[in-house]
Amino acid sequence: MATNAHTLAEIAERFDLRLRGDGGTRIGGVATLAHAEAGQLGFLANPRYRSELAHTRASAVVLREADADSASVPCLIATDPYAAFARIAAMFERREPPQRGIHVSAAIDPSARIDPDAGIGAFVSIGARSTIAAGAIVGPGCVIGEDCVVGEDCELVARVTLVRRVRLGRRVLVHPGAVLGADGFGLAMDANGWIKVPQLGGVVISDDCEIGANTTIDRGALDDTVLEEDVRLDNQIQIGHNVRIGAHTAMAGCSAVAGSAKIGRHCLIGGGAGVLGHIELCDRVTITAMSLVTHSIREPGEYSSGTPIQDNRAWRKNAARFKQLDALARKLRHTDKDPSR
Amino acid sequence: MATNAHTLAEIAERFDLRLRGDGGTRIGGVATLAHAEAGQLGFLANPRYRSELAHTRASAVVLREADADSASVPCLIATDPYAAFARIAAMFERREPPQRGIHVSAAIDPSARIDPDAGIGAFVSIGARSTIAAGAIVGPGCVIGEDCVVGEDCELVARVTLVRRVRLGRRVLVHPGAVLGADGFGLAMDANGWIKVPQLGGVVISDDCEIGANTTIDRGALDDTVLEEDVRLDNQIQIGHNVRIGAHTAMAGCSAVAGSAKIGRHCLIGGGAGVLGHIELCDRVTITAMSLVTHSIREPGEYSSGTPIQDNRAWRKNAARFKQLDALARKLRHTDKDPSR
Amino acid sequence: MATNAHTLAEIAERFDLRLRGDGGTRIGGVATLAHAEAGQLGFLANPRYRSELAHTRASAVVLREADADSASVPCLIATDPYAAFARIAAMFERREPPQRGIHVSAAIDPSARIDPDAGIGAFVSIGARSTIAAGAIVGPGCVIGEDCVVGEDCELVARVTLVRRVRLGRRVLVHPGAVLGADGFGLAMDANGWIKVPQLGGVVISDDCEIGANTTIDRGALDDTVLEEDVRLDNQIQIGHNVRIGAHTAMAGCSAVAGSAKIGRHCLIGGGAGVLGHIELCDRVTITAMSLVTHSIREPGEYSSGTPIQDNRAWRKNAARFKQLDALARKLRHTDKDPSR
Repeated sequence: MATNAHTLAEIAERFDLRLRGDGGTRIGGVATLAHAEAGQLGFLANPRYRSELAHTRASAVVLREADADSASVPCLIATDPYAAFARIAAMFERREPPQRGIHVSAAIDPSARIDPDAGIGAFVSIGARSTIAAGAIVGPGCVIGEDCVVGEDCELVARVTLVRRVRLGRRVLVHPGAVLGADGFGLAMDANGWIKVPQLGGVVISDDCEIGANTTIDRGALDDTVLEEDVRLDNQIQIGHNVRIGAHTAMAGCSAVAGSAKIGRHCLIGGGAGVLGHIELCDRVTITAMSLVTHSIREPGEYSSGTPIQDNRAWRKNAARFKQLDALARKLRHTDKDPSR
Repeated sequence: MATNAHTLAEIAERFDLRLRGDGGTRIGGVATLAHAEAGQLGFLANPRYRSELAHTRASAVVLREADADSASVPCLIATDPYAAFARIAAMFERREPPQRGIHVSAAIDPSARIDPDAGIGAFVSIGARSTIAAGAIVGPGCVIGEDCVVGEDCELVARVTLVRRVRLGRRVLVHPGAVLGADGFGLAMDANGWIKVPQLGGVVISDDCEIGANTTIDRGALDDTVLEEDVRLDNQIQIGHNVRIGAHTAMAGCSAVAGSAKIGRHCLIGGGAGVLGHIELCDRVTITAMSLVTHSIREPGEYSSGTPIQDNRAWRKNAARFKQLDALARKLRHTDKDPSR
Repeated sequence: MATNAHTLAEIAERFDLRLRGDGGTRIGGVATLAHAEAGQLGFLANPRYRSELAHTRASAVVLREADADSASVPCLIATDPYAAFARIAAMFERREPPQRGIHVSAAIDPSARIDPDAGIGAFVSIGARSTIAAGAIVGPGCVIGEDCVVGEDCELVARVTLVRRVRLGRRVLVHPGAVLGADGFGLAMDANGWIKVPQLGGVVISDDCEIGANTTIDRGALDDTVLEEDVRLDNQIQIGHNVRIGAHTAMAGCSAVAGSAKIGRHCLIGGGAGVLGHIELCDRVTITAMSLVTHSIREPGEYSSGTPIQDNRAWRKNAARFKQLDALARKLRHTDKDPSR
């Protein structure tokens, strides 16, 4: 770890944090309070872990001013210790620099344009008229179809598919197994069965978005499916055709948005939550995990559906009563003696 | 757009629609009412968008007779405007014709048989005894294992996996990342831990099915997992081993069916809905989004579970009461003065 | 089937089962009671299928002693017929033996070490410093990044991705499309938008685990994400960063565990169920399908949330009342005449 060590004073200056204690303390890595060893920097952001401060073996800790008195080691004091820690931790990330140039095995359409400063990995195929900009990395096993654009400094980690008419802005990060630009799910019924509705639109992913592993974003039926800038999608999320997601919105794993829904800016969608098609969420809406949004939401705030978890025996009794709820409520109205209600 | 233009009269004749207005109107593409430009054909199917009819810049519109008087541009009148539009839109789909023949990079077992009129993309591997029929397209990065059959005019878009004993009928369309024929989830427990139950069956996908991106369909334990004809699966759907899904059933994204369940014909399964194992749904059952089916359903109709979304503060109060629901109901019975109830 | 036939007496002896009837009966395969043909061995474990015993055409049946009198064919009597059947069925599994050695197309970093007895398939790429142990199979299209370990006798079926710092124990089976070791979903917010929290940890998968198709397991932020031995994950499961799952726990399809949660040993997590972040489940907890666990569980047992499925018309009325539940409960308290309550 010593190969990449910095003094606490250097770190404080670089990230504009207040130093308390010995600025010469050498930091060679970052860790949780519980597992830190000597030479490592810990952090305290979630109050849940405050009790670990007393026992940590970290050589220094990033924390809020209010917690600093409880620390017996040198501290970096931050208004937002988690954000400060995120920036500091990036100094210690170990990875091979991605290779530039085109791997000998790649299968690239003659009409595609690859910037000489891009990196194209093994077993990548790139279709007609697609372009890969400077600094972009297309990792091993990616498939890029026709008429796609991969912007500057994007990274497609591995095995990402851009099917057709997918345009990524700058610094978009896409994790393995993600599929962008597959056909939206458009069906009409006639006498003989389903008729497929052609999906003629595309997908637009704006700057600084992140797309999780095995997440799927369908291309639009006529207009495009759009993610505005800095949208962050976790793994296994499903985004239907013609959805629009506002800037800085984050969605947790396994959530889903059905076709033509519009999500505002700065929304937080919990894990496994669902949003039905053709509805709108205004800015700054939070949906808790596994809730289902069935109508448009026009006021910022936190919204939920579902029932609490219970031991199965108690739950069965209560769930059986849920089926009688309307009848119970009517009965209560009749029982009630006050005729004004 | 002019390269692929048709007159409105030509379109009316080709799809047997009634023309109202100037049949010489030239149509070079299709669009939503809201975003159509001159030279494009719009459509009005969902009443939600009726108000857009007055302001559209489309050169013509497909709609129901009842809406035609509100249109100020030439019209094509259809009983089902959405189905008509689906057929018309296919005239304007732009894509490269898929390449026939076998890409030089493909790794094909000597015992596999590939029709000369099939197309095998880059980095495809095909296992022992598998066959690819005429007109079938196996896109880049697909893996086809042993004993698989890809029928006439199927398309595996890219990065599709058929693990073993998967048989596709004709015109089956499979989107990227789908995995068909992986081991079903069969486990028995003994004193030392789990014993894996071998999955000796296969998967049968009938004609005209469509399988969404990153959807998984496991092969059967002994018998096969079966999709009858014209089943349409959206993205990220999970189909357990030995499930059978009836013809013309459609399932929306992130829904799931557990092992050995049987779904009827013409069912509609909403997004994120679940069906437990070993149960049966009769024909023409609709399950709304994120509902869980815990017992067999023997009457056609629409079924739901779950609770409505509310602001979190109100929801917390109501959810807390759900845990007391049986107690409340008992209390109400005692409060009730009428002994006949 | 005759190529791989065994007598019933041989099978009884090999798996230590009690034989009843003609031990010379030849068994060439296994099947369900409903679809068995002559020469096949059926089994009866789930009482749901007991009525099929009378009509089966199987030449012999594995079952509990209590069911043996109802059988008119030779029997193998087992305490746990499903476990016995699992072991017997493995005798009849048909598959090509995986190829050893390195496929000519594979792209392997010079610093990676591949055991001569491992098998590396077509279009596999393996990154810096990764190691593949003896007997391990890395199927076609897999991508293995930097600093990964694939232990003895592991099988990565096809198109599996190990992103970085993923260590698999012995006999780990990973199905197609699974992504292990992608970035955990760690974000901090500052004035300009999201800051990505570097994910410096890894993933540890212990001996005898199985990972389903398109399942995702993120690598830890600082410490590792850990699966203890013999954990069984079905398809499309999402495991967040720094989760720990105890030995012998099984999770059904589409379930999810958010970051830093700890699941005990011998737990059963139902399909589509969710566990929030930073909470703990003790050993031997069962969560029913599509339930959401929002707080730690400290007692073994079965737990549920949700409401029962009903026809949509009845459900709508009851669901509307759910929004009034707290008000109804308050009203009931006032209606109640007994002041002691």
